[in-house]
Amino acid sequence: MLLKRVGVLGGLGPLATVYFMDMVVKLTDAKRDQEHIPMLVMNDSTIPDRTAFILGKSAESPLPRMLENARMLENAGVDFLVIPCNTAHFFYDAVAEAVKIPVINIMEEAVTAASGAVSGVKAIGVLATDGTVQSGVYERFAKSAGLRLLVPEKEEQEAVMHIIYDEVKAGRPADWKKLVRTAESLRQRGADAVILGCTELSVVSRDQELTQIYPWMVDSLEALAEKCIVTAGGRLRTAGRQ
Amino acid sequence: MLLKRVGVLGGLGPLATVYFMDMVVKLTDAKRDQEHIPMLVMNDSTIPDRTAFILGKSAESPLPRMLENARMLENAGVDFLVIPCNTAHFFYDAVAEAVKIPVINIMEEAVTAASGAVSGVKAIGVLATDGTVQSGVYERFAKSAGLRLLVPEKEEQEAVMHIIYDEVKAGRPADWKKLVRTAESLRQRGADAVILGCTELSVVSRDQELTQIYPWMVDSLEALAEKCIVTAGGRLRTAGRQ
Repeated sequence: MLLKRVGVLGGLGPLATVYFMDMVVKLTDAKRDQEHIPMLVMNDSTIPDRTAFILGKSAESPLPRMLENARMLENAGVDFLVIPCNTAHFFYDAVAEAVKIPVINIMEEAVTAASGAVSGVKAIGVLATDGTVQSGVYERFAKSAGLRLLVPEKEEQEAVMHIIYDEVKAGRPADWKKLVRTAESLRQRGADAVILGCTELSVVSRDQELTQIYPWMVDSLEALAEKCIVTAGGRLRTAGRQ
Repeated sequence: MLLKRVGVLGGLGPLATVYFMDMVVKLTDAKRDQEHIPMLVMNDSTIPDRTAFILGKSAESPLPRMLENARMLENAGVDFLVIPCNTAHFFYDAVAEAVKIPVINIMEEAVTAASGAVSGVKAIGVLATDGTVQSGVYERFAKSAGLRLLVPEKEEQEAVMHIIYDEVKAGRPADWKKLVRTAESLRQRGADAVILGCTELSVVSRDQELTQIYPWMVDSLEALAEKCIVTAGGRLRTAGRQ
């Protein structure tokens, strides 16, 4: 079995990158080390904050360092790239243009997964950073898939940002019940499936096994991990998952 | 805070590398992404099996690929290297000679941690692969620290190998109670502290929080993670740990 090498443009944030790698290893159907996907991972935690730049709160762009890392990974010989961070996909086009190898898009994979999460999906909700929500990229992918997109109301969005920045990124316990309530509120407003569109929320989901409990909840990081395994030529482990 | 970049020669096995990264992130006292240790990780799962080669069961040496990866990480600009795999430290000297940057030794760190795990440590035990045990490297480091080293009896050693290869590396649930019994058997024979000298055993320990329950149990991977954070210039998180 000849496996492709994946390059991981990581560190955005560092824990989400670790969880992504963990998912790739655990979702790969492998009986020994050598059947796992080879990964070269730049877990560059020191890249400037993405949301702060997108919202104009900081003049320091994360893009130059992202491009530098993408080219470094390409030069090191990886076959394709992934970026385990939704917010950083604001810069997806620039990264994809800077390298010759393919770059998998986490939002595209998440929307595809959400459209098949439960039967008859017509509208999807997304929980993400202000940067991701305001960039409108999820809306674009939802439209392409013929789906309506719902985002949280102002107060709920603030609660989501609090979980991401003041809890997960700060290494504190996350209020996962509030996360579930916010997701359920989107469902009440008409969303058939809800995407966890921020990898810090994926961390919470994985720790609490939320996507196992709520089949209508779709983890963008898990969707990216599955696509990564298949693209590399690995076998997807299906037992024990929904 | 200017942080050094660590290069991780990983994939030996792939899950242990992920757990190592997880430890580095979670043991770093950081309030935001940018205070975490930047890591470049080659999670090269396809490197030939180490124990099989060391014991002469396979002619395919993992060394050429390890050297190739070490040089690649060095050329990419990392400041020092770690190898989150005890067995691979059979090749430590060759790797250290092949690069100009320092390479932290997991066994040295584990022995140092074990000597201070409980008071008055005179003898330590080690649970590791046949390759690690027979290479005698742990014995060398124990001697340098003025400590006696104990290893499991034949049957117990076979049980340890079963946990490592047929359970953890195969993605199956590990018999952690057997692991604890084997460690306790070394204690009964006179070991004051017992090192989990194989990163697959670190995976079991972390899942079951064994080093939290048994203060005399020392996880080599955790010792390496702590040394890595300090070497990179990061702050060690001490709250919530023993």
